[in-house]
Amino acid sequence: MKIHVLGGNTSKFGELWDTSPRELGRQTMKKALQSAGIEARGIDALFVGNMLSGIFGNQENLGAFYAEELGVQVPAFRLEAACASGGLALHSAVNALLAGIYETVMVLGIEKMTDHQQDVVSSALMAAGSDEERQTGITFPGLYALLTQAYMQEYGMTEADLAAVAVKNHYHGSHNPNAQFRFPVTVEQVLLSAKVADPLKLLDCSPISDGASAVILSTKKHKSKVEIIASTMATDTLSLSDRSSFTSLGAVVRAAAKAYKAAGIQPKDVDVAEIHDCFSIAEVIASEDLGFSKKGHGALDIASGKRTLGSGEVILNSSGGLKACGHPVGATGVKQMVEIMEQLQGKAGDRQVHKAKVGLTHNVAGSGSQAVIHILKGSI
Amino acid sequence: MKIHVLGGNTSKFGELWDTSPRELGRQTMKKALQSAGIEARGIDALFVGNMLSGIFGNQENLGAFYAEELGVQVPAFRLEAACASGGLALHSAVNALLAGIYETVMVLGIEKMTDHQQDVVSSALMAAGSDEERQTGITFPGLYALLTQAYMQEYGMTEADLAAVAVKNHYHGSHNPNAQFRFPVTVEQVLLSAKVADPLKLLDCSPISDGASAVILSTKKHKSKVEIIASTMATDTLSLSDRSSFTSLGAVVRAAAKAYKAAGIQPKDVDVAEIHDCFSIAEVIASEDLGFSKKGHGALDIASGKRTLGSGEVILNSSGGLKACGHPVGATGVKQMVEIMEQLQGKAGDRQVHKAKVGLTHNVAGSGSQAVIHILKGSI
Repeated sequence: MKIHVLGGNTSKFGELWDTSPRELGRQTMKKALQSAGIEARGIDALFVGNMLSGIFGNQENLGAFYAEELGVQVPAFRLEAACASGGLALHSAVNALLAGIYETVMVLGIEKMTDHQQDVVSSALMAAGSDEERQTGITFPGLYALLTQAYMQEYGMTEADLAAVAVKNHYHGSHNPNAQFRFPVTVEQVLLSAKVADPLKLLDCSPISDGASAVILSTKKHKSKVEIIASTMATDTLSLSDRSSFTSLGAVVRAAAKAYKAAGIQPKDVDVAEIHDCFSIAEVIASEDLGFSKKGHGALDIASGKRTLGSGEVILNSSGGLKACGHPVGATGVKQMVEIMEQLQGKAGDRQVHKAKVGLTHNVAGSGSQAVIHILKGSI
Repeated sequence: MKIHVLGGNTSKFGELWDTSPRELGRQTMKKALQSAGIEARGIDALFVGNMLSGIFGNQENLGAFYAEELGVQVPAFRLEAACASGGLALHSAVNALLAGIYETVMVLGIEKMTDHQQDVVSSALMAAGSDEERQTGITFPGLYALLTQAYMQEYGMTEADLAAVAVKNHYHGSHNPNAQFRFPVTVEQVLLSAKVADPLKLLDCSPISDGASAVILSTKKHKSKVEIIASTMATDTLSLSDRSSFTSLGAVVRAAAKAYKAAGIQPKDVDVAEIHDCFSIAEVIASEDLGFSKKGHGALDIASGKRTLGSGEVILNSSGGLKACGHPVGATGVKQMVEIMEQLQGKAGDRQVHKAKVGLTHNVAGSGSQAVIHILKGSI
């Protein structure tokens, strides 16, 4: 059964203090319908990905909440898997379509985070982590700093090599009208930015963001020229301390193997990928776990320009990634799919990857406790 | 494709102050595996239903969290639909099984609520409601009191008629070793209990509870003698003020119509049903929306003893229902299925409904914004 991507929309990401979650969701869903050229009554079910609405807004029951904003009384699901909530909502929607229960569904990813002080947000995000980790007082920058140190130790990566991730993603983000940060940065600026958790600096960390993204998937025949050819997910331990490796994420490796097999493709067949770069090291490790770079070469390949728009090899994070486009956690997984859809439709404007035919999205929870991967194919 | 219920377990419901959510989940999942006679490695995916873990425990990412406790690294989904979170997790699991993606899955519903003061819990539960309703300061007892007043106005039901719901459910609960309240009450006791929101009294309201319930579903052939023959869901507006009726819940009516059609049965074919009696009026209205009683006759049929163990007609809430068994919100929908499974297996002990062959579960979010219905068939 074919899953077509009919259309989608991503809101501006950033500090959207003048927009309520309700309004943000409504506008984004409306624009997604317009993009697909269908009416709300054509939607058979709604899948909502969100992490923090309960903790920050005391609003749960988000399926019914956003179905009301969509203006339809259809089955509505709220999925949560921390920063992979959007990806999990997509994966659940694909499963329901494959079951033949619905023909056309909408997936909404949404998060409002900037109405709270940064330390409150940082603490709330630890809801994705384990009891043991939280008892130590560590937060996610610290957890990813541990991964960075292990990687530097094992492969000799320098802080300047790592800085190339943010430099590339800010360059891409500068071409994205919806990005939170639309300016380039240099390696020097990254290296001189404030230390957050050694060796990670401010410009190695994705920001706190508001934003929403919605996409419409269908098993019906449609003029759409994009389809999902793999949707997979895998799980790992919550705590880093229970893992056998700190330089690879097992959930990503397992989800990727299933995804490539389901799609019948190799990593080299991917033209463009949206990677979960919550911290620079995450993109380096992911580029290896996904098979784009050899172990230990991820950062070097990024620094060499191979992953930058125009290179002719697989382009990573044409949207600007979590780093420059922003990271409203529940929205990120869906935004990744909208970006890949636009790339495969040839509608990515200044960010267009030349002749992009195959795209991949990679959405991760916490420090790798869950990974969701989608592979999409265009037919232009 | 047949969906078999392989086994399940419900924890003691009540004030479980000495058990952490982690421990409660682990024990319940372990006993569910024992009930099904399978090992954890036989589980292909985990579906977790929970509403309040973020707000109360600052713990999200519950799929990975409980997969770790189950000891398996399988795809793990966390579903939330307020008080119907357990039902939604079941419905999602059934969808995934129908898609042929997994063969055997576990569904865990869990909630820890009593570690907090009652007014905090009451306020947190309004996360299931609408902005407008919350701005008025109303809480769920008040919303259901409005429904009660409308119903009394329309059908002339008395407070004594309504009290029969709690009397029946406490009688049933007195036979359930896992029930939070294992004592009978009289109509007089209900009528004399403290007013909570006129005309609802303390004994018309379900309690605040801790508890967990887990069930294992499979498309594999198995010695199990219970199968799910319908799994449906429908949505309505969040706010009561946007509804056309206050004496019927549209989501229940729509989900029930789909469920009876899918199962190919009539309401009169149902031998035992677990009803979402968060407040007494909810059971009265549900017994009519589900087709067991004529409009306006729900309370009278309950008061006459027709819905009580031993009557020979459809028995409602043999477990004691939300009122007497307890209502740990994310667990309730799953507990309902475990109760029906035990009834259809003839293993319900003192609560056994004679020759029960067909059972139904009815799980509702908020004041009716979502409804999930399952119909099960036994083959004893």
